[in-house]
Amino acid sequence: MSKKSGRLPTPEPADVVVPCCPPLTAGELSEADAERMAGMFKALSDPVRLRLFSRIASHPGGEACVCDIADVGVSQPTVSHHLKKLREAGLLTSERRGTWVYYAVAPSVLAALSATLAPRVAP
Amino acid sequence: MSKKSGRLPTPEPADVVVPCCPPLTAGELSEADAERMAGMFKALSDPVRLRLFSRIASHPGGEACVCDIADVGVSQPTVSHHLKKLREAGLLTSERRGTWVYYAVAPSVLAALSATLAPRVAP
Repeated sequence: MSKKSGRLPTPEPADVVVPCCPPLTAGELSEADAERMAGMFKALSDPVRLRLFSRIASHPGGEACVCDIADVGVSQPTVSHHLKKLREAGLLTSERRGTWVYYAVAPSVLAALSATLAPRVAP
Repeated sequence: MSKKSGRLPTPEPADVVVPCCPPLTAGELSEADAERMAGMFKALSDPVRLRLFSRIASHPGGEACVCDIADVGVSQPTVSHHLKKLREAGLLTSERRGTWVYYAVAPSVLAALSATLAPRVAP
């Protein structure tokens, strides 16, 4: 039951896409990169959070209203808490349209995390 | 200072490679897949653990003796604890050769995690 208005999106302050990080197989991570990546993996280390994330990532158009994804068996405040954690880690962006907030997976972040974990190509 | 003997490797009991999981963008994760993946991300959610992991992943041959990777600024028992967590999560395999234990990144697991995070291909 997506409700979209025709208004232009208004990005919220936390919509920061964090550029991330060299492949784990390329060399030893710097402490700074390790801190940043650990934060992203920590955001994905909760099963409910991961299910919310996959609901958004697999939703048509790659974004979902909070009204579309909240029935994962936990309370609304818990859903909000998890979405906030994912947004703070730079994995989701959000924008308010009318009464609803829409969440989208930051594609560049997902691509970067995926590349980070890519196995080394044999020489 | 790698020390390799010519003996055949003897896999340890915890050398279980966990097959993992559908892409996050393909649909909502099942609870079981979400639990399993969250466990892997949790293992990667500590900066020191991530640096140890990247040292092993980037070491020549894709494996490293614990003697090669232990100088990350924490005590030897802490290094052992982190390596155990990574092994239990199915991200590392280990084998004893002579007096040393060698750790290797399970390539199939890394490839699977990477694919799990791959962005959806635009239709």
